[in-house]
Amino acid sequence: MISVGIVGATGYTGIELLRLLSGHEGAEVKVVTSNSEKGKTVTDVFPSLRSYFDLKFVEHDSDQLKSCDLVFFATPHATAMHYVPDLLEHGCKIIDLSADFRINNSQIWEDWYKEKHACPELLESAVYGLPELNREEIKAASLIANPGCYPTAITLALLPAVKNGLIDVKDIIADAKSGVSGAGRKAALASQFSEVAESFKAYSVSGHRHLPEMMLTLNNVQQSNDLNLTFVPHLVPMNRGIFATVYVKPKDHSIVMQKHYADFYAAEKFVDVMPEGAHPETRTVKTSNTCRIALHPGNSESQPTVILSVIDNLVKGAAGQAIQNMNIMFALDEGTALLAPGLTP
Amino acid sequence: MISVGIVGATGYTGIELLRLLSGHEGAEVKVVTSNSEKGKTVTDVFPSLRSYFDLKFVEHDSDQLKSCDLVFFATPHATAMHYVPDLLEHGCKIIDLSADFRINNSQIWEDWYKEKHACPELLESAVYGLPELNREEIKAASLIANPGCYPTAITLALLPAVKNGLIDVKDIIADAKSGVSGAGRKAALASQFSEVAESFKAYSVSGHRHLPEMMLTLNNVQQSNDLNLTFVPHLVPMNRGIFATVYVKPKDHSIVMQKHYADFYAAEKFVDVMPEGAHPETRTVKTSNTCRIALHPGNSESQPTVILSVIDNLVKGAAGQAIQNMNIMFALDEGTALLAPGLTP
Amino acid sequence: MISVGIVGATGYTGIELLRLLSGHEGAEVKVVTSNSEKGKTVTDVFPSLRSYFDLKFVEHDSDQLKSCDLVFFATPHATAMHYVPDLLEHGCKIIDLSADFRINNSQIWEDWYKEKHACPELLESAVYGLPELNREEIKAASLIANPGCYPTAITLALLPAVKNGLIDVKDIIADAKSGVSGAGRKAALASQFSEVAESFKAYSVSGHRHLPEMMLTLNNVQQSNDLNLTFVPHLVPMNRGIFATVYVKPKDHSIVMQKHYADFYAAEKFVDVMPEGAHPETRTVKTSNTCRIALHPGNSESQPTVILSVIDNLVKGAAGQAIQNMNIMFALDEGTALLAPGLTP
Amino acid sequence: MISVGIVGATGYTGIELLRLLSGHEGAEVKVVTSNSEKGKTVTDVFPSLRSYFDLKFVEHDSDQLKSCDLVFFATPHATAMHYVPDLLEHGCKIIDLSADFRINNSQIWEDWYKEKHACPELLESAVYGLPELNREEIKAASLIANPGCYPTAITLALLPAVKNGLIDVKDIIADAKSGVSGAGRKAALASQFSEVAESFKAYSVSGHRHLPEMMLTLNNVQQSNDLNLTFVPHLVPMNRGIFATVYVKPKDHSIVMQKHYADFYAAEKFVDVMPEGAHPETRTVKTSNTCRIALHPGNSESQPTVILSVIDNLVKGAAGQAIQNMNIMFALDEGTALLAPGLTP
Repeated sequence: MISVGIVGATGYTGIELLRLLSGHEGAEVKVVTSNSEKGKTVTDVFPSLRSYFDLKFVEHDSDQLKSCDLVFFATPHATAMHYVPDLLEHGCKIIDLSADFRINNSQIWEDWYKEKHACPELLESAVYGLPELNREEIKAASLIANPGCYPTAITLALLPAVKNGLIDVKDIIADAKSGVSGAGRKAALASQFSEVAESFKAYSVSGHRHLPEMMLTLNNVQQSNDLNLTFVPHLVPMNRGIFATVYVKPKDHSIVMQKHYADFYAAEKFVDVMPEGAHPETRTVKTSNTCRIALHPGNSESQPTVILSVIDNLVKGAAGQAIQNMNIMFALDEGTALLAPGLTP
Repeated sequence: MISVGIVGATGYTGIELLRLLSGHEGAEVKVVTSNSEKGKTVTDVFPSLRSYFDLKFVEHDSDQLKSCDLVFFATPHATAMHYVPDLLEHGCKIIDLSADFRINNSQIWEDWYKEKHACPELLESAVYGLPELNREEIKAASLIANPGCYPTAITLALLPAVKNGLIDVKDIIADAKSGVSGAGRKAALASQFSEVAESFKAYSVSGHRHLPEMMLTLNNVQQSNDLNLTFVPHLVPMNRGIFATVYVKPKDHSIVMQKHYADFYAAEKFVDVMPEGAHPETRTVKTSNTCRIALHPGNSESQPTVILSVIDNLVKGAAGQAIQNMNIMFALDEGTALLAPGLTP
Repeated sequence: MISVGIVGATGYTGIELLRLLSGHEGAEVKVVTSNSEKGKTVTDVFPSLRSYFDLKFVEHDSDQLKSCDLVFFATPHATAMHYVPDLLEHGCKIIDLSADFRINNSQIWEDWYKEKHACPELLESAVYGLPELNREEIKAASLIANPGCYPTAITLALLPAVKNGLIDVKDIIADAKSGVSGAGRKAALASQFSEVAESFKAYSVSGHRHLPEMMLTLNNVQQSNDLNLTFVPHLVPMNRGIFATVYVKPKDHSIVMQKHYADFYAAEKFVDVMPEGAHPETRTVKTSNTCRIALHPGNSESQPTVILSVIDNLVKGAAGQAIQNMNIMFALDEGTALLAPGLTP
Repeated sequence: MISVGIVGATGYTGIELLRLLSGHEGAEVKVVTSNSEKGKTVTDVFPSLRSYFDLKFVEHDSDQLKSCDLVFFATPHATAMHYVPDLLEHGCKIIDLSADFRINNSQIWEDWYKEKHACPELLESAVYGLPELNREEIKAASLIANPGCYPTAITLALLPAVKNGLIDVKDIIADAKSGVSGAGRKAALASQFSEVAESFKAYSVSGHRHLPEMMLTLNNVQQSNDLNLTFVPHLVPMNRGIFATVYVKPKDHSIVMQKHYADFYAAEKFVDVMPEGAHPETRTVKTSNTCRIALHPGNSESQPTVILSVIDNLVKGAAGQAIQNMNIMFALDEGTALLAPGLTP
């Protein structure tokens, strides 16, 4: 039985970890932390978990974490980096759901996150926890940087094309749309119901922090630095879900990308390549760990291929993928506690 | 392994049965029917179930159903009654999620449903499948009438008070609110997104078909016929959830109803009596089989006690309760496949 | 041309005043205040008003307000009371959309608002701005207490019955439901999209501040103190709208309440009594100043009459009613700038 | 006073015409038609219009239409074309909100709409009613083809760039998102609340009927045929609003597109060019006739410029633009009845 700690368990990724782990037969949550709700029980804060957990929140720096086999960080960025080195020294494995270890170049990280990195020496050994890309490295890792929600949907949409050299990497557009839970569980005017419902907007058009994460991953995959990705995120008035519409230019229109994608992901439990021309909806993956992808070749040579990719931002885009990584690290069946289908409606 | 058939598996209660049964280790869905989608696969209609089921829809009158141990009817009313007698003769057990067997008096049924009942002789032996009320009868039953969604939330809110004679049964008001999935999965102008979103309404104020069902159940519980219940249903712009606000007049203000409720439901896995004065939200039971109840005594003797009761209309109000009944009928652990906590957000 | 000031113009009632006044031919907004957005233009904060207003926010205590003919307070409670006495002395008329002057008894006010009232001497002269009740007093008033949103919907639903002595005033239940904009435009965890969407809840069951306001108004109407009103507010996942379901016991079932209501409101431009048995929806009054009411007599003598009442909480429940009051105070046509029909969808 | 008829007045564009015309001092609605609701009053079907209209629906072929100065068609495609020739002969002017006269090439029309055009001889004289493009032609026209909702948002986003030759017309991507009211007011499973809420999807990726309309308009503007536009529409769980994210490649990065746009639309009442880098939200134009546009130049020469464009699909994208066209045709102030600002929230 893996003993688990969750740092920052009062956010949406925190409670999603609790929800999914409540059904995990090989792991038990022993410690939950929250600086703001310290002393309260899990069920005080989340009545949906009444009878599932008998735990009180302790502070982030609680010594109790040190006896855990694995600690998840479900904190805002620039938090985990202050606690991780000490926990690693105590032998804990770490899966960080925040951005602190996703960019293995401290300069780029600091440019985007406007803060000094607290442990740049760990960046090299951190493994980017996208199992479909790095499964072998994850098995051996002590420190996992769990991918961002947008990067999960977009990278999985591009991986076969970039890895197999099928497209012009200098001209990729990712128009992405996210549900509101991606903004986190905190009081903010911009995420108030009446500011979001019955409206739609783009944000951070001039540059979003998930862009360098995707650039590094994909450039690394293609072993070059010339990838050019335009990324525009949008906010959808719904709780869960990411939808990515990715426009790519095939190098050669005789290539059948559909076959490449089907082959590439044939053995993957959590990537579902739909038939060519299908229209995935975010609700088909709601509460599930699946990324569902469909390809639409252009009608003419001059038109891009459109790749549609959907995930649940809190599951495959956060807590589910983190548990998938845990399962891999501890040599459990990769799908443990992650096999429920999506919710309709 | 129980072999299961689902008649009318393309509605919201049908797909919810499929979703929940996909994780049930003691039951296997062998037959699904749909007259409108006959010949299609389950995953053609519900891409969220891709990889979970390899079944094609057959017609309602398919002989394949006769070899099932148990058949669920997830059909509109006045459908099951035409198929059930034959299936019972072939030894199938039946759980009908529709209204056909909920009212054990064919005259009352016909007054409300404006149709002749096809098998009134079965009404007497049908067991009303509210486990908290009829667990023993369910164990032995061949034909279960699964309760309606409103009746589940409201009857559970009233059961301890009515059974223990705590309130004036002649003066009960149930102001109930339902998510839109309660209207079923079919094309109807009144349930179009743009007719429902950003609006709130009452409907069927002059009389809703769930009223006689509740009256019969509760009068039976109190062994008298003088219960008077005013029931007003409302439509909430959300997918799932029922919220019932029930106003009752305690016979004697010295009675501590909270204690009666806590005791009454102490052994029940799926009824959660919250601390007095708590405010349950429907989202705390979303996707779960729990009914969560809270009591608010009036501030003065002249004021009613307010009982708040929430369920997920598709789970405890339909498919979850149906599976709970199946588990009881087949002597499985009552919670099998029903133990997931509610979803947040 | 009436020169208008708006204190606290960055909340939802503030921007609604701006929206409605942009089309008012007899009034011009000269001053807008906001302590938090001081120095910004109206259109910086509300791009929907680009080209409509060329104003900058100044502080609440700006001297510019003193030269206005009329000042609206669209502030949280316990703000207006600090500025109103001085403005009255300078000859401004005041319409306060907050609660500061709604309860003409400082002791009751302080019990519910947990604060010392800053100018109790003004409470007596303040007029409760429900035109259908106090039109004559409003004409002559300098200080209007604009009614709360729930009290507007519920008082209008009860006024003919209470005034004409048709019902048992000791047994009234008002089960009310509000859209989220009623919580105001401010960062609060409980109003975050992902805390509210796809959920429904009751709140403040043990006592809401709108209760004493309704009790005082209605007891005053019936010239007695024995009215007993149970009021339970609920939150609906939508932006705008209040729906009140009011349960009353007619003194005599031979009384045709429908006729009393139709007569009572026959001359009222902004109260629409629908045919008996109708089902008003909040969307039929969205963006309009109308209160729409429908009566449902009980099926038997022992059953209550159900009164349904809908308003747009930001219009008839706040800014629209405030402008209606302004129109009356300044002898303009009462409907000026308030005649747009509801929005569908 | 212009006498107005509306054919198909029970759809969302029909009721929006009624809502906006209720405040138009120069036009009066005399005839409304609906084959399905014939004989009912407007307020039977739309209680939001109680007291605003005293009209009964008649059939589409009613002779009453012939005495109207102007007839709006708010019907599905392939309806207006059967009635328009006769009405034109009787001297009515026509504004068709459907697609029947938008494509002035009957072959292309028939390819996309899969039906024989009933009056191809009228296509040449029909004027495409985008005032910002064709104001002079509209003044003199008898038959206006009111633009589609997507084409309005996208064409306005591209017009200055294409007309002034600023961009590579062979590489344009328009990723567009629409609220659900765009699907019309009719019973359809795909538009049911529970099929749409809490989900996001693309549709018609392989080809949407608004594509040829945009291609023809823009190719005409640039007087060439080589424009290549990739158009992907998506469905947003909200009632109203279109958001277009348009990706273009400037021919020369020294061109300041912002200035071109500001100049191009300087005199336009209903196009608001925001400051460079702004983030328009659909709610800022909700219920208003404004199209709000913002430009985001790429960070490097290899990156596209992103143009964001928002409209209310039922106003500038349908009924509002139709009234704008009417105002132009009848030499009224172009903004008559269209000057209300957007609704927040």
